[in-house]
Amino acid sequence: MNSDSVAMIDLSGKMHKLETVCIFGTGDFGRSLGLRLLQSGYNVVYGSRAPKNSLLLPKESKVMTHAAAACDAHVVFVAVQREHYGFLSSLASDLKGKVLVDVSNNLKRGLYPESNAEYLNKLVPGATVVKAFNTISAWALQSGGLDANRQVLICGDRADAKQQVMDIAQSLGFTAQDKGSLRAAAELEDLPLQLFPLWRLPLNIAICLTAFIFFYALTRNVIYERVTNGKDIAFRIMISLANKAFPIVSLVMLALCYLPGALAGFLQLYNGTKYRRFPDWLDRWMLCRKQLGLLALAFGFLHVLYTLVIPIRYYVRYRINVYTISLVKDNKTYEFDNTAAWRYDSYYSMGILGFGLFVLLGITSLPSVSNSLNWREFRFVQSKLGYITLLLCTAHTFLYGWDRFLKPTSYRWWMPPEYMLSLVVPCVVLILKLILITPCVDRNVTRIRQGWERQGKTSANGRDTKTNHPLIA
Amino acid sequence: MNSDSVAMIDLSGKMHKLETVCIFGTGDFGRSLGLRLLQSGYNVVYGSRAPKNSLLLPKESKVMTHAAAACDAHVVFVAVQREHYGFLSSLASDLKGKVLVDVSNNLKRGLYPESNAEYLNKLVPGATVVKAFNTISAWALQSGGLDANRQVLICGDRADAKQQVMDIAQSLGFTAQDKGSLRAAAELEDLPLQLFPLWRLPLNIAICLTAFIFFYALTRNVIYERVTNGKDIAFRIMISLANKAFPIVSLVMLALCYLPGALAGFLQLYNGTKYRRFPDWLDRWMLCRKQLGLLALAFGFLHVLYTLVIPIRYYVRYRINVYTISLVKDNKTYEFDNTAAWRYDSYYSMGILGFGLFVLLGITSLPSVSNSLNWREFRFVQSKLGYITLLLCTAHTFLYGWDRFLKPTSYRWWMPPEYMLSLVVPCVVLILKLILITPCVDRNVTRIRQGWERQGKTSANGRDTKTNHPLIA
Amino acid sequence: MNSDSVAMIDLSGKMHKLETVCIFGTGDFGRSLGLRLLQSGYNVVYGSRAPKNSLLLPKESKVMTHAAAACDAHVVFVAVQREHYGFLSSLASDLKGKVLVDVSNNLKRGLYPESNAEYLNKLVPGATVVKAFNTISAWALQSGGLDANRQVLICGDRADAKQQVMDIAQSLGFTAQDKGSLRAAAELEDLPLQLFPLWRLPLNIAICLTAFIFFYALTRNVIYERVTNGKDIAFRIMISLANKAFPIVSLVMLALCYLPGALAGFLQLYNGTKYRRFPDWLDRWMLCRKQLGLLALAFGFLHVLYTLVIPIRYYVRYRINVYTISLVKDNKTYEFDNTAAWRYDSYYSMGILGFGLFVLLGITSLPSVSNSLNWREFRFVQSKLGYITLLLCTAHTFLYGWDRFLKPTSYRWWMPPEYMLSLVVPCVVLILKLILITPCVDRNVTRIRQGWERQGKTSANGRDTKTNHPLIA
Repeated sequence: MNSDSVAMIDLSGKMHKLETVCIFGTGDFGRSLGLRLLQSGYNVVYGSRAPKNSLLLPKESKVMTHAAAACDAHVVFVAVQREHYGFLSSLASDLKGKVLVDVSNNLKRGLYPESNAEYLNKLVPGATVVKAFNTISAWALQSGGLDANRQVLICGDRADAKQQVMDIAQSLGFTAQDKGSLRAAAELEDLPLQLFPLWRLPLNIAICLTAFIFFYALTRNVIYERVTNGKDIAFRIMISLANKAFPIVSLVMLALCYLPGALAGFLQLYNGTKYRRFPDWLDRWMLCRKQLGLLALAFGFLHVLYTLVIPIRYYVRYRINVYTISLVKDNKTYEFDNTAAWRYDSYYSMGILGFGLFVLLGITSLPSVSNSLNWREFRFVQSKLGYITLLLCTAHTFLYGWDRFLKPTSYRWWMPPEYMLSLVVPCVVLILKLILITPCVDRNVTRIRQGWERQGKTSANGRDTKTNHPLIA
Repeated sequence: MNSDSVAMIDLSGKMHKLETVCIFGTGDFGRSLGLRLLQSGYNVVYGSRAPKNSLLLPKESKVMTHAAAACDAHVVFVAVQREHYGFLSSLASDLKGKVLVDVSNNLKRGLYPESNAEYLNKLVPGATVVKAFNTISAWALQSGGLDANRQVLICGDRADAKQQVMDIAQSLGFTAQDKGSLRAAAELEDLPLQLFPLWRLPLNIAICLTAFIFFYALTRNVIYERVTNGKDIAFRIMISLANKAFPIVSLVMLALCYLPGALAGFLQLYNGTKYRRFPDWLDRWMLCRKQLGLLALAFGFLHVLYTLVIPIRYYVRYRINVYTISLVKDNKTYEFDNTAAWRYDSYYSMGILGFGLFVLLGITSLPSVSNSLNWREFRFVQSKLGYITLLLCTAHTFLYGWDRFLKPTSYRWWMPPEYMLSLVVPCVVLILKLILITPCVDRNVTRIRQGWERQGKTSANGRDTKTNHPLIA
Repeated sequence: MNSDSVAMIDLSGKMHKLETVCIFGTGDFGRSLGLRLLQSGYNVVYGSRAPKNSLLLPKESKVMTHAAAACDAHVVFVAVQREHYGFLSSLASDLKGKVLVDVSNNLKRGLYPESNAEYLNKLVPGATVVKAFNTISAWALQSGGLDANRQVLICGDRADAKQQVMDIAQSLGFTAQDKGSLRAAAELEDLPLQLFPLWRLPLNIAICLTAFIFFYALTRNVIYERVTNGKDIAFRIMISLANKAFPIVSLVMLALCYLPGALAGFLQLYNGTKYRRFPDWLDRWMLCRKQLGLLALAFGFLHVLYTLVIPIRYYVRYRINVYTISLVKDNKTYEFDNTAAWRYDSYYSMGILGFGLFVLLGITSLPSVSNSLNWREFRFVQSKLGYITLLLCTAHTFLYGWDRFLKPTSYRWWMPPEYMLSLVVPCVVLILKLILITPCVDRNVTRIRQGWERQGKTSANGRDTKTNHPLIA
């Protein structure tokens, strides 16, 4: 290494470090940020109205008035709640040319017409405002990032200011991602207020389906029994009815997870191109397939537990006991039915293998596992194995039903057994998939997905949605 | 892009790369490090006493004497065990002005009064010592970091030297985190020697609790039966007693996981501020809540398996058989008890739902999952769903006990049934929580947590502990 | 911060940003890349044959002819399929001195004699070719990297060009890893085409073992019964035989996972040094231990489900019923066998505890969990707890067999019961481990692993394989 480059490195070393950073605000976040900055070799100056809480601040830091503190630093973190931003306009001259980092979050959505960062930008027009660190909690700053989200999202209008904040984030051990201009601040401020946005739709579907199946089964079983035979079997709600609702919801939601992919395939075939926007409802549906699948797995898991608990139930033991005693009294013998043995064992076996594969799908959905797969592997697991899972679970349900659909007694009050309802969607999905994988159709779909367009079709207007999500089909 | 910036980039390209790095030591770590450095475009020179093992070194590297090797490079990695540091003092003049990177670890804690890096600093006062890479294994260096921990922790007294080592770490595909001055080296050297420090306390609690419940149940069941009836039912130890101990430990530990949060809430109410240090024991307790919860889940999982295995147990089949035969012989019938059916089915249902939620809590504790949640989502899962889990599991236990607490025969040798012991802590936690969420108390707690302080209270001295951990309550 | 450093930062800010990047190709990848680059503050210019698809491109970008687009930028991304590279040779003069980033992948392996990047390098000799981003999907580019693999692998012959591409990758929120010279491009292009390469061998072992055990059990049970007694018990295939094959495969594969470590220990003892290459088969075996273990866990999981489903099977209920009735008719009583109670309960207990620990091992194999462990913790879990798991599962199998090996009726057609086959490998592994941990042997192994070499042994030629994997033993 020649002397020149050593000099450069020394310079850049000094440039990044020993830099003074100012923090307005001495709350939890301000204190945690200051501590972390000190640890990484920065000088930290706090700007505060009063030195009252300063006893809690890291002792290597200095506390001054806002104006004095801002004077020393080029980057000023504004760790103050939006309601108290007012005082900043009086500091406009002190903050001129500085980089103001807005780290604030709101308590609720839609409290203000504009984002905090844009409001700050208006208040101090001479400074450059960068929105950053608002998705990082004081706890993540303190714990060193091992256990916490380590991505700092940044937006702002000036590239050089953003770069400076990115450099600081990286020095603190975070990775930084540029999210564009300051207009993106509203979006960044919404992120910490979100509560599982992608889970909303799948959860609502699951709840509605569960409620419907539950009341359907309640009518067909408990109420029917009460009305026609006058018997009270309401205790069956706790396990028997639950164990009718859970597997049905699980199977239907697993099928719903693969239905949009099949529909998209047919739509592309019909359009003759992949460069055509999908309808909005299909787009939204495709985006929540992972959540649909995971909820289906959760319901499947409950179904497994509810099933395995059967032999220790009081009611089941009672029934077996009564049956055995009745056989003894009537001097009958239990005739062994070979078909029944095959049927029940196949039924359980399909269910177990299906559940096993389903758990595998769930494990590969964990972020750290799916990140270690390449695209081909991910598609293999989620698409190929996914369809095998669906096939096994559907077969499991068919074997459960067996010839029950032929018996008139199954249609109490003209309501078919619950399991028959659950088979509609999976069968549709499997048939659609079967059509899509026939050689002649498959050739066309593959060509279209590789960019081929049918003659006479012109590219659609609008952005292609294909880039918005992986097309697992 | 104008020509100026191209020139700058070319320069910075050359600056970071083609740099020569020296490695003292040709062991596993030295070789792996050299290979990775070569791969990233650095020149690598080894300093070695003898070229004996040099056949194993990457062939693009050069091997020289220590002095000659150090001459070419600005950064020297000391991949030698501390016992052999002696020779470095003789190289003091060659190492003057260089950056020495101490990557060493010790075999045990507390072998030496000072950290290896500080010792190295004394031996070669003219050089700048940086501690780094000691938490990275040779294996992680080789495997390219996909499967291994990718955070390099760095400490040292000079910012520019640290920045150079950080640049190297980032070129190798690691992320670097600055941990402060060289005094932190002792802490960094302790990290690879730790064996689950946060799990110690929860594990000890679990073991003591399990042992206590086990011997309690042994006395109440096996020994009591032996003494009063002379019957040997010691075989029950394997499953029946284990299945008494596991669920109790699980429930108590789940409750212990939420107790400190509730206590902290009351303490803040009493103090009238959140800017007051919690007592040390409460701090330590709060820090290991995740571990308490996960251990509780593990015990819960064993409880589920032990329960599901019941109907295939020899003893259970024997008992059912004997009961059925006795009914036949006495010409009695099994009276169906509707209340019992409700009770048992509810009992199982609560348990299954509680366990299902518990598994969900466990999954969201996986680092990659919890990192993808924002703070609000994490709190929702760990706090709201956590309390619902506790409620379900407590209800499960109450339904299990039912009216047994009223029967005098339950109090063998004046010892109440085991399940009653397990209900104490969960009930306390649930009652405390109930008080905390009553509107008037909740309003005060929320205000305090947002920074409000009661009049007349002065800020406490000492650092606020609130920033040390998330207050899940 | 003095004015100098501010100036430098401003400059560097401008240097990294506002830079113009050119993209050849307007397919999915090109569009996603462009959008992300725009988001991070770059100017984006597309080079296209025809503006036909340009309506789908981000509207802030410009579309020009290839020559005009390349003119403005220093870095040109070639997002075109290899078959269409031809036109680039005609642009040789426009691309002179530029950095060409080859992001292409092939549809299949081995289609071409040389990698796409090397081919590009020949076509445009005046430009510098860098291979990068080919392991990142269009989807990962769009979704912002939260849910997708975030490591960009880079190779190329010039360090400065690689650095520029690395800077871009980092600006987009990815981490970059340098994989060496352009010769590595073939390897990088293979990565996205791989389909679980490390799982191949373990999967083949699992399938062969399962098939063998299944047909062995089929012969010993179903066919034997048919031939000797004329009874058709083929329905047992679905559950009974599956539940013989799964646990056996699970136990054998768990043992196979620890066998290579034990063999390696003996080999090192024999060689008297760790600096000697292991034979190739042992190397390959050691590299897929994690996969062997996880497959063993999957089979163990199926075994658990198949076992727990037993009491709700039709056949089992039938048999219990018949037995009870026969007891009643013959006026016999079920004699309670205390030894059987102990044996069965211990057998289940060992199995449950073994499975519990096995699940723990599986959880610590998740990338995000194993990354949060230090080397000592990882070894403790995978080695110590792993051997305890193996011990428990072997004991479980011994208790299952009990004294069956003494009974001549167990050896139908001279074939020993299946469980006996499954005990061979685990017993060998446990005995080898027992020898390795005897104090005198252990002392030698430890010394060797710390680098000691026996006198008279010379270092082997070739690279040490010890650095290729952690030696868990």
